[in-house]
Amino acid sequence: MSAPPIFTRSVRASVAGLGEQALIRRIRRWLGSASPKTPAGIGDDCALLRPVRGRGLITVDPVVHGVHFDGRVPARSVGAKLFKRNLSDIAAMGGSPRAAVVALALDPSVSIAWLGDFFRGLAAESCRHKVPVVGGDVARLKGGFVATLALTGEAGARVLTRKGSRVGDWIYVTGRLGRSLQSGRHHSFQPRLAEGQWLARRREVRSMMDVSDGLAKDLPALTPAGATAALYAGMLPLNPGAGIREALGDGEDYELVIGVASGTRREKLEQVWRKAFPRTRLTCIGRFVRRGARPPGAIHLEDHRGYEHLR
Amino acid sequence: MSAPPIFTRSVRASVAGLGEQALIRRIRRWLGSASPKTPAGIGDDCALLRPVRGRGLITVDPVVHGVHFDGRVPARSVGAKLFKRNLSDIAAMGGSPRAAVVALALDPSVSIAWLGDFFRGLAAESCRHKVPVVGGDVARLKGGFVATLALTGEAGARVLTRKGSRVGDWIYVTGRLGRSLQSGRHHSFQPRLAEGQWLARRREVRSMMDVSDGLAKDLPALTPAGATAALYAGMLPLNPGAGIREALGDGEDYELVIGVASGTRREKLEQVWRKAFPRTRLTCIGRFVRRGARPPGAIHLEDHRGYEHLR
Repeated sequence: MSAPPIFTRSVRASVAGLGEQALIRRIRRWLGSASPKTPAGIGDDCALLRPVRGRGLITVDPVVHGVHFDGRVPARSVGAKLFKRNLSDIAAMGGSPRAAVVALALDPSVSIAWLGDFFRGLAAESCRHKVPVVGGDVARLKGGFVATLALTGEAGARVLTRKGSRVGDWIYVTGRLGRSLQSGRHHSFQPRLAEGQWLARRREVRSMMDVSDGLAKDLPALTPAGATAALYAGMLPLNPGAGIREALGDGEDYELVIGVASGTRREKLEQVWRKAFPRTRLTCIGRFVRRGARPPGAIHLEDHRGYEHLR
Repeated sequence: MSAPPIFTRSVRASVAGLGEQALIRRIRRWLGSASPKTPAGIGDDCALLRPVRGRGLITVDPVVHGVHFDGRVPARSVGAKLFKRNLSDIAAMGGSPRAAVVALALDPSVSIAWLGDFFRGLAAESCRHKVPVVGGDVARLKGGFVATLALTGEAGARVLTRKGSRVGDWIYVTGRLGRSLQSGRHHSFQPRLAEGQWLARRREVRSMMDVSDGLAKDLPALTPAGATAALYAGMLPLNPGAGIREALGDGEDYELVIGVASGTRREKLEQVWRKAFPRTRLTCIGRFVRRGARPPGAIHLEDHRGYEHLR
């Protein structure tokens, strides 16, 4: 593959050659219909957003060259992933995404061709989910590339946080886990927006989050005080080639994990799920039990690690 | 002065020594009352925002080490400035700020002491303006520090954009211009939030923006099509030591510039302004005239340059 490199020695082919004003004009062109007219879009001090009915949501996530991607990843995938990481956070609250802003910090040697592909990837997700890119900023960063996207959303009538689980609740996960980086799924995944909204409307679902750093690292945030997650190896939905270690530690799954009330008629929940989402698994992987009462055969989650961002 | 350096060779004194989870706990402690409890604050996939009455606003701006600040600037000032740059954008639409999220991309060698001061500076502005820091993200960046803040706001009944001026309108600016970097005013300034809201309620004010890259670079965005800004050197409100060149080109002023309808009783506007804001100047600096009809004595704005972000 001959993807354009992110940095170039040719001033004419770099954003330095373009200059700031021309670069912003290009960005609007690359974004196309993803970029509404001012004041609802790029071009004023702030972007003006339509009123939302209920409570708002906001999240922010970056992509960093050398950390979240390298030269082997097509620029389009980088832009798409930046958008989708943030969409997955809105999905994890059961919300609907509304508008995005993107701040770039980049070396002046970043290639115009590469950046164009990056924004086309961003625009494709923006259009797919009908979430406009309404503003941003461009700043210089010596020798690097950081793109930070902040995404607003609208909460549904019911919001699922990480805090609703109780001891005894069942733990479910959407899709399959593990080997997301090796399989390219960390770029090709689709955020579980419809699934998140559906789950937030089900009373028996008490808590929700997305799995981005690996289940072993993320699940404690969903676990009620005084409890521990008892997971069974044989129940984990594995991606091809993944074992328990990969399913628990790989990260970048962007699946939803939920706590389901202990008294739930589980077959009923699973049945209506299959009807709503016939192509996506919803799998019971274990249960929250009182700390110190781990049943025999349950995985020792403490023996597994997720992705650590500062190492 | 012995401010702590931003990067340290001591692993124990750096964020690498803390690790991600402990760092996030520290950030919440540094933010103190600026950081509300989850789900209205840090700790879930998104932050949940209170409903706003009218239309929303959003803006995003970063601070980059080596570009927006260096080792001579106290960390507290860096954090404060990051918040205030964004507040100034909300002010420039006549809006009220509501909630902030902060994404850090940083080298693991960033000093804990430095970062603590950075967040204390951020927290001070957050508390002063009653705008909570509701979420964020921490990612690794080799050899650098980029903090990106996205700020939501609520629009007033009337929103002032950059697009409302007409030929013949008067141009006014708040405060004084020039030498912001040399005087330290680019750190000590206070965003013109109350002023912006007041101006948006005045029917004779037709357009507004903030001056961040220098009037020469910013004013064309406020200038109506087919017009040019005729400014008079003798009317520019100068900061001590500043000349015309500095007033037009220095940037980092964070003052508001507005277009005022040509038929306005200007003495009346100036009088009510003085009553509302006795300590802040509002100065008429010129007028939008038909292109090619620049009156004798007016400044040739094209001879001046503002701050260019990608050079």
